[in-house]
Amino acid sequence: MMAIEITKLRVNYKTLEEFKKFKEYGIQELSMSEDLEANIIENDSESPFYGIYFTDKLVARMSVYQVKGKINRYFEPHVDYLEIWKLEVLPDYQGKGFGTALVKFAKEFGMPIKTNPRIKSRSFWEKMGFCSVNYEMERDLGENPLIWLPESIQEKEIS
Amino acid sequence: MMAIEITKLRVNYKTLEEFKKFKEYGIQELSMSEDLEANIIENDSESPFYGIYFTDKLVARMSVYQVKGKINRYFEPHVDYLEIWKLEVLPDYQGKGFGTALVKFAKEFGMPIKTNPRIKSRSFWEKMGFCSVNYEMERDLGENPLIWLPESIQEKEIS
Repeated sequence: MMAIEITKLRVNYKTLEEFKKFKEYGIQELSMSEDLEANIIENDSESPFYGIYFTDKLVARMSVYQVKGKINRYFEPHVDYLEIWKLEVLPDYQGKGFGTALVKFAKEFGMPIKTNPRIKSRSFWEKMGFCSVNYEMERDLGENPLIWLPESIQEKEIS
Repeated sequence: MMAIEITKLRVNYKTLEEFKKFKEYGIQELSMSEDLEANIIENDSESPFYGIYFTDKLVARMSVYQVKGKINRYFEPHVDYLEIWKLEVLPDYQGKGFGTALVKFAKEFGMPIKTNPRIKSRSFWEKMGFCSVNYEMERDLGENPLIWLPESIQEKEIS
């Protein structure tokens, strides 16, 4: 099996063009494009995205953000945790372990992880060891959050 | 044209069964079912859902929650606002103004509104006068929030 390499993506016109192939393209990417065009951010500056290239083509990506412990409403103790969103593999490249590799990469930071995946992808996340939170309306609203816990961290108890 | 009546939905087995026909059924509804079965909540207690019945059948719904001004990160001044989610009309009943009626009903509370709709429904929300927020990663993560402002309320400026 080929080794899968995970790359921290940088904000530039080539990457932003490749992002358009992903279904979950949204205002985050639009805002990056506008900021680049207006010189508000530099070319090749850091982005919150990690990706996998197959030959020269971006075929999988995810966005990762480290949420500060003081606003942590999911885990005990109130440590920093990772929020993952827009984990997506292009259709022709699915089933090759790219999604799994990205999630494993995120787990290696050793922090709890939260994600709010689309309903159809739940079985994938469950295979990766994620489970549902206990729903709290004020916090979760319309989300269906899934979490993953490293040892020594627990889900917050319902108050 | 027939008058459309909007009903505050109550938590009971009939309504929870009808919710299963909606695509965005998730942990919120599961949690309501479990709480009802375990007698943690009473039969016919209030839910955050409003709906429209056609003859005796629930054909449209939305969930509404009033977010406290002190945690308002979207609007100036920091007033309470409404979060709407799971606005959905069953396929056979679309195009009859049910979705529009639900949004108009929410606007009548006179508060700003925020929603994070599925990408395909953006044109509907734009017709209803909603527009995109300025993306802020720490706040919006993977969301594509749309907001609606009554007079005298503005979008929060980017800090």
